[in-house]
Amino acid sequence: MITNTRPLRLAIIGGGPSSWIGGMHRRAAQFDGCWQVVAGVFSSHPDRAASAAQAVGVDSARGYADVATMIAAEAKRADGIEAVAIMTPNDTHYPYCVAALDAGLDVICDKPVSTTAAEARDLAARARAKGRVFCVTHGYSAYPMTRHAKQLINDGAIGPLRFVQVEYIQSGLAKPIEQGTMTDSQRWKFNADRSGLALVYSAIGCHAQHLACAVSGLAVEAVSADVGALMPGRTVVDTILASMRFAGGARGQYTITQAAAGGENDIRLRIYGERGLIDWSHRESAYLHLNIEGETARTIGRGDVGLPADIARLSRTPRGHPEGLLEAFANIYREAAEAIIARRNDQVVATVQYPTINDAVHTMDFIEACIASHANNGAWTNL
Amino acid sequence: MITNTRPLRLAIIGGGPSSWIGGMHRRAAQFDGCWQVVAGVFSSHPDRAASAAQAVGVDSARGYADVATMIAAEAKRADGIEAVAIMTPNDTHYPYCVAALDAGLDVICDKPVSTTAAEARDLAARARAKGRVFCVTHGYSAYPMTRHAKQLINDGAIGPLRFVQVEYIQSGLAKPIEQGTMTDSQRWKFNADRSGLALVYSAIGCHAQHLACAVSGLAVEAVSADVGALMPGRTVVDTILASMRFAGGARGQYTITQAAAGGENDIRLRIYGERGLIDWSHRESAYLHLNIEGETARTIGRGDVGLPADIARLSRTPRGHPEGLLEAFANIYREAAEAIIARRNDQVVATVQYPTINDAVHTMDFIEACIASHANNGAWTNL
Amino acid sequence: MITNTRPLRLAIIGGGPSSWIGGMHRRAAQFDGCWQVVAGVFSSHPDRAASAAQAVGVDSARGYADVATMIAAEAKRADGIEAVAIMTPNDTHYPYCVAALDAGLDVICDKPVSTTAAEARDLAARARAKGRVFCVTHGYSAYPMTRHAKQLINDGAIGPLRFVQVEYIQSGLAKPIEQGTMTDSQRWKFNADRSGLALVYSAIGCHAQHLACAVSGLAVEAVSADVGALMPGRTVVDTILASMRFAGGARGQYTITQAAAGGENDIRLRIYGERGLIDWSHRESAYLHLNIEGETARTIGRGDVGLPADIARLSRTPRGHPEGLLEAFANIYREAAEAIIARRNDQVVATVQYPTINDAVHTMDFIEACIASHANNGAWTNL
Amino acid sequence: MITNTRPLRLAIIGGGPSSWIGGMHRRAAQFDGCWQVVAGVFSSHPDRAASAAQAVGVDSARGYADVATMIAAEAKRADGIEAVAIMTPNDTHYPYCVAALDAGLDVICDKPVSTTAAEARDLAARARAKGRVFCVTHGYSAYPMTRHAKQLINDGAIGPLRFVQVEYIQSGLAKPIEQGTMTDSQRWKFNADRSGLALVYSAIGCHAQHLACAVSGLAVEAVSADVGALMPGRTVVDTILASMRFAGGARGQYTITQAAAGGENDIRLRIYGERGLIDWSHRESAYLHLNIEGETARTIGRGDVGLPADIARLSRTPRGHPEGLLEAFANIYREAAEAIIARRNDQVVATVQYPTINDAVHTMDFIEACIASHANNGAWTNL
Repeated sequence: MITNTRPLRLAIIGGGPSSWIGGMHRRAAQFDGCWQVVAGVFSSHPDRAASAAQAVGVDSARGYADVATMIAAEAKRADGIEAVAIMTPNDTHYPYCVAALDAGLDVICDKPVSTTAAEARDLAARARAKGRVFCVTHGYSAYPMTRHAKQLINDGAIGPLRFVQVEYIQSGLAKPIEQGTMTDSQRWKFNADRSGLALVYSAIGCHAQHLACAVSGLAVEAVSADVGALMPGRTVVDTILASMRFAGGARGQYTITQAAAGGENDIRLRIYGERGLIDWSHRESAYLHLNIEGETARTIGRGDVGLPADIARLSRTPRGHPEGLLEAFANIYREAAEAIIARRNDQVVATVQYPTINDAVHTMDFIEACIASHANNGAWTNL
Repeated sequence: MITNTRPLRLAIIGGGPSSWIGGMHRRAAQFDGCWQVVAGVFSSHPDRAASAAQAVGVDSARGYADVATMIAAEAKRADGIEAVAIMTPNDTHYPYCVAALDAGLDVICDKPVSTTAAEARDLAARARAKGRVFCVTHGYSAYPMTRHAKQLINDGAIGPLRFVQVEYIQSGLAKPIEQGTMTDSQRWKFNADRSGLALVYSAIGCHAQHLACAVSGLAVEAVSADVGALMPGRTVVDTILASMRFAGGARGQYTITQAAAGGENDIRLRIYGERGLIDWSHRESAYLHLNIEGETARTIGRGDVGLPADIARLSRTPRGHPEGLLEAFANIYREAAEAIIARRNDQVVATVQYPTINDAVHTMDFIEACIASHANNGAWTNL
Repeated sequence: MITNTRPLRLAIIGGGPSSWIGGMHRRAAQFDGCWQVVAGVFSSHPDRAASAAQAVGVDSARGYADVATMIAAEAKRADGIEAVAIMTPNDTHYPYCVAALDAGLDVICDKPVSTTAAEARDLAARARAKGRVFCVTHGYSAYPMTRHAKQLINDGAIGPLRFVQVEYIQSGLAKPIEQGTMTDSQRWKFNADRSGLALVYSAIGCHAQHLACAVSGLAVEAVSADVGALMPGRTVVDTILASMRFAGGARGQYTITQAAAGGENDIRLRIYGERGLIDWSHRESAYLHLNIEGETARTIGRGDVGLPADIARLSRTPRGHPEGLLEAFANIYREAAEAIIARRNDQVVATVQYPTINDAVHTMDFIEACIASHANNGAWTNL
Repeated sequence: MITNTRPLRLAIIGGGPSSWIGGMHRRAAQFDGCWQVVAGVFSSHPDRAASAAQAVGVDSARGYADVATMIAAEAKRADGIEAVAIMTPNDTHYPYCVAALDAGLDVICDKPVSTTAAEARDLAARARAKGRVFCVTHGYSAYPMTRHAKQLINDGAIGPLRFVQVEYIQSGLAKPIEQGTMTDSQRWKFNADRSGLALVYSAIGCHAQHLACAVSGLAVEAVSADVGALMPGRTVVDTILASMRFAGGARGQYTITQAAAGGENDIRLRIYGERGLIDWSHRESAYLHLNIEGETARTIGRGDVGLPADIARLSRTPRGHPEGLLEAFANIYREAAEAIIARRNDQVVATVQYPTINDAVHTMDFIEACIASHANNGAWTNL
């Protein structure tokens, strides 16, 4: 068992006082006492950097206006930062990650980690070379029940896999918001140079790809994809539809859109094996449906007695009392901390559960293959 | 208002005493007193034809052993049959339909009506030439709530359509049943010459295609499809995955399999328009979810007060009391009867609601395009 | 196995052409070919009796205007009626049942069979004396899944019973309809002399009491009840709330109202035993939730493989295809026919599944005890 | 708008490192930066008080071993505590509350605040006399959707209220745990002197009573109750069943048990008014069902656009991303902080939303009336 005797010191890059994702990361990091947020670049405006830090409970002297300055200044402190968590516009992830890794810091990065697969590969190489933890905050695969689904599949509960359906359907782009006055956050997302390959993929699609691959344990080998926009006249990508073939022969289907008026935030993952089905929906995140062919359908709950210990510890609230996405994020932060402490103690983490930079490389390969397939009239395209 | 003063006289071809689909058709036909089953070919064994007729409540003298004999014999009776309902193996649909139409009979036919699109076109031409009703028994589009969805969309409730998702997922072929001893019914289905283009399509896929097109009111223009088998080593088609483009520009996704272990009989249709979503699941066939962007989600029920009169009449049981697939079939039979009576009375049916032979032509075009796309590495293929 | 070689001959009393419950009974009786409706009193107006019979497909000569005439006339026919099904206003059930039983006919009667417990006891005595089947059409306990619940409990699946919750919540009396112009059907229901003890109990409450007792297999021993009206100023009973004690020590709670605006037709039965819970809702009538403490929650479906044969035969449609209340009624009619045929063949029916006149006696005792408890300020009152 | 410029200083009494409710309170208090936990009695063992404080991130010097010492010591500090949060065994709530109020501290107390109604009344008098905030942590009424239900009802959305159903069903006492070796936490709960009136009421029943009264806005006037045990031979109360009459004439039903094997943590509140129904279940805590008679059923979601601003602010995560009980607790802590700051600023809080000591008085009156009714054979008993 890996325990930390003191909170690790974290800097946050992005995620200022008015950012909801910032609050999510700060609370998640500190949820279990594994981390303390001690510094950050909460605003790139020099005159707001200190006050923004203070507003999120950080010493104003450690509220920096740029990443390089922070890394340099913190390196000089005996109690300097040990890791960074990055939640800035997508095109800045790569340079910030490089800077942090090169300085020997561990990295927690929001998705997508880069705007190209080549950059992701470069980050993977740097993390490996430096022996640093690189953790990607895909929260949906860190719920107790998505983790349990992964374990059930790994244990053969539904037999060899045959079919994977994943969908993530939202309505955020159902209106032509690019024709009106956009918020800062919307503006950089609609700028392809800043948001990366395919707007909808950077926003939500990479979560769905990761969820499908993480839970199934399968890599995608080829795709036949339709990459475009449901909204007439739109020039950015709001929708990706794809058929998939996985290593080992399973088929799959992938459905991503942010232009679905009336959609809520509908994530669903269904994985069929030779023996049966595992079905998980975000709307009922604390439950998992397990239908074994010929047996009675079962609904596994987050608080069920008899869950494996490593699944049970992902839950902190008694049976029947809801938890949220925050606790899933907290699971990732705790696992990242444990990995760092294990490394320092020369301990071995049995299985890395958090999403790694290697997962991120696959994520970027996936979208590049989808785009290539679409450009080639839907032809099957290898990753 | 079209009323029939006496039940129309129906012959059933197929659907003997031990057939569940036979019972479904007989009960549905007679549900509202529109039809009386007076004759039939309930067994092709000459020595069982009479007893099979008797077992389903038909005069044994009118239990025939073959279709041609029945048509000839009934033509001589003053109280002879006025229509046939066909539920035999798929490859016999076309010749029986031809025989019935050529004899001037109205036709109710199980799906698929033929094994090729060319045959379906020929049936459409014959029905048109003879001025006969040709009704296809796609039950799922005849539930009060799928009909209401169609009407809401037609009335613009969700605005111009943008995305259509349809899925039909079953487990009937999840096991390698072709490697064991098959029942008669299974044997002809696995025989491609008898079941038609793509086993899974003939069995369930054409229902899903029809449902999507009937409710959306859209025709498919092109598909990019993966047509194959989830079951390793299987030579018949148990799965079809496709992306679709509809006339008018909407996109869609199509998911059909009978090899999904743990699937029940999961039909779901989601249609997104500019303003919102209509969502219908077979498991909750009496309810329709209507989510208009920016408004509170609504659940319309089969028995709600305030439904349009032509939807309300599709339901015969008070609010909150379940109906089944039988009543949906009965709706089709009643509409077919009304169309026949209207023709005789020189009345005009405002809108034909039951699935017609023209729908069946589109159904067969769809599968031929899917197969062609698959053969061409997933390339987009026009219908 | 009990099989009937020909349909039994049934007369229907009440349930004319425009009555939905009449259609329900006629279709249910004839669903499996066990019964043929050959006569009836479909209208008490002499000049409409014949045409009403014809309208429901019965020989107009056998459409009678009163019960006594029908019984006398049919007794003279070689092919005369063998049983009656009664669905008239409640106060007429008792005399019609008496007339039928005294004539040696088997009886199928809508609920409640009488307006007092004394009358019900008298009917039980007559049925016993004559050796006749007396079947009460409580449809909700005849769904495959309520029957399966009964069997699971009987087999000890949830251990000794501890707590029974039953509710039936409707909105039919949510508005002060008695202050407006009522339909004929409403008028007799609001007339306490005609509808029996407590309007809401005669309408729906007796169904809930029967469901709880039939599925649990328990008799109610005592109640503490609140019998009154949610609607201010109403003089008839629209609501009954009660605590119950069952033979053997289990407790229960009973919730009945027709004055709940926004209620649909919400029937739910939960039975908790020492080991776990069985939970059934009418809205999902084809599913049964079985939660055994410490085990994964299970959802049993109507079409599951592996159901006991006597449960599986209550279902006529494949897994995942909905059935309705009609099929539940058809189960009762088939069981009544089988009981009659068994008696004639000197066969023994292993377990009587349909609701009997003895159940109806308990039903009437229950409401009399509720009313007495209410009159005594909620004091516990024995049945 | 009330804003706090610095976190208020909070002491926690109870809720040590291994307590889940302790973690819930600490995280909730600090969630929005309104509070900082600076001191506490986390263990009553003098030699563990300091280490327990440190383990939860509090200065070990401010980890006290008893309440009186803490209050005295903190009073001398310039940065001493401003409020206490109490989560100790129930019989200690009253003396600790008295000590805190008498010292001029604001109080946040776990339920039930006392073991008798008289004690609760005394606390109400002291809080009023001192002008201090007294907040009870009933989390279930602090979800965005239970708060919205309260507001909808208050705004007349369903008309005058007629019927209130509340249930809280658990399985914690489904086994005879009192016959085995109990944990410390179980032992004091089974000790009637320590846990207060009726075990199940102190544990969960008071939550249900509060939820029903808070959301409906109604006070209970009389009850007819069955107070006892489902478990044979049990001497403590594991179940309470009651009928209720509310001020203004509405009726209600109350169902509480911890001895329901197979129950999860099933809280449901249904409130019917003249116009319709509001239905909320804990399992779907982020959704509210609103069924207005004659209109389409609606499902309001926590993240819906168009929610009133004071409801929207109770939610911190975007639409479709789950929150948990923690965020509901955080709402209460934020409201308590705002009330304290408002008092200091001589501001007026428009509506007190958090549960107050006056609510707690009603809570204790309710259980005393239930016990009296039960002792009197279920007779209606006024509060």
